Amino acid sequence: MHKIEHIGIAVKNLSEANKIYKSLLGQEHYKTERVESEGVETSFFKCGESKIELLEAINKDSAIAKFIEKRGEGIHHIAFSVDNIEQEIVRLKKEGFVVLNETPKKGADNKWVAFLHPKSTNGVLVELCQEMK
Amino acid sequence: MHKIEHIGIAVKNLSEANKIYKSLLGQEHYKTERVESEGVETSFFKCGESKIELLEAINKDSAIAKFIEKRGEGIHHIAFSVDNIEQEIVRLKKEGFVVLNETPKKGADNKWVAFLHPKSTNGVLVELCQEMK
Repeated sequence: MHKIEHIGIAVKNLSEANKIYKSLLGQEHYKTERVESEGVETSFFKCGESKIELLEAINKDSAIAKFIEKRGEGIHHIAFSVDNIEQEIVRLKKEGFVVLNETPKKGADNKWVAFLHPKSTNGVLVELCQEMK
Repeated sequence: MHKIEHIGIAVKNLSEANKIYKSLLGQEHYKTERVESEGVETSFFKCGESKIELLEAINKDSAIAKFIEKRGEGIHHIAFSVDNIEQEIVRLKKEGFVVLNETPKKGADNKWVAFLHPKSTNGVLVELCQEMK
């Protein structure tokens, strides 16, 4: 966990949110990406060594749609950058964390990703990210 | 907004949460700080150029106590580092953001801070931080 890779924010309308975060951060988003498997359209802003990822649901089954229905828009997850995601999954399971993806899956932005259940991390949905080679 | 200064996480029990985040991040917190004016006890972990701030309420009137009562433990705010907080407050007000502290106040970790209301930032409580000289 050598840096915060990104913070994921659930939004209702990506193009409206892009305008708001452009004003806030003083710069445009540098890319958008649709992740069909997660049911989301995303946009990314740079902020130092980290990124802000905005997420809009593209269908009702998306975790983002359910999150917004339950809690409204807001911060959805924190993603930490790791060098070896498989080793980290083994280590964190041993430490007692509830790992939701024992095998890393393909995420946005060219990453292998795995999530930890919020019940083992004080209500925080934690994502592990490793750059794909 | 040149980097994410920290992410604030509301927790019920700081000493229990310190153990969990030590396991997660692979390191101890490097300091604790009580901020009487905010009604919180805090601890800080380093993560790259950013920090993770855990916050426990020390009284029932604390914003952290109210947050946990309403939503449970979880991510409370994102703090961005700024060079000139007074200029940023003026700029963000002009851009239409709802600034909660028109005059910066003293926050934890030797910072001048000001918050933006979540209603103008897609449900995200945003903190601006400037290092005190």
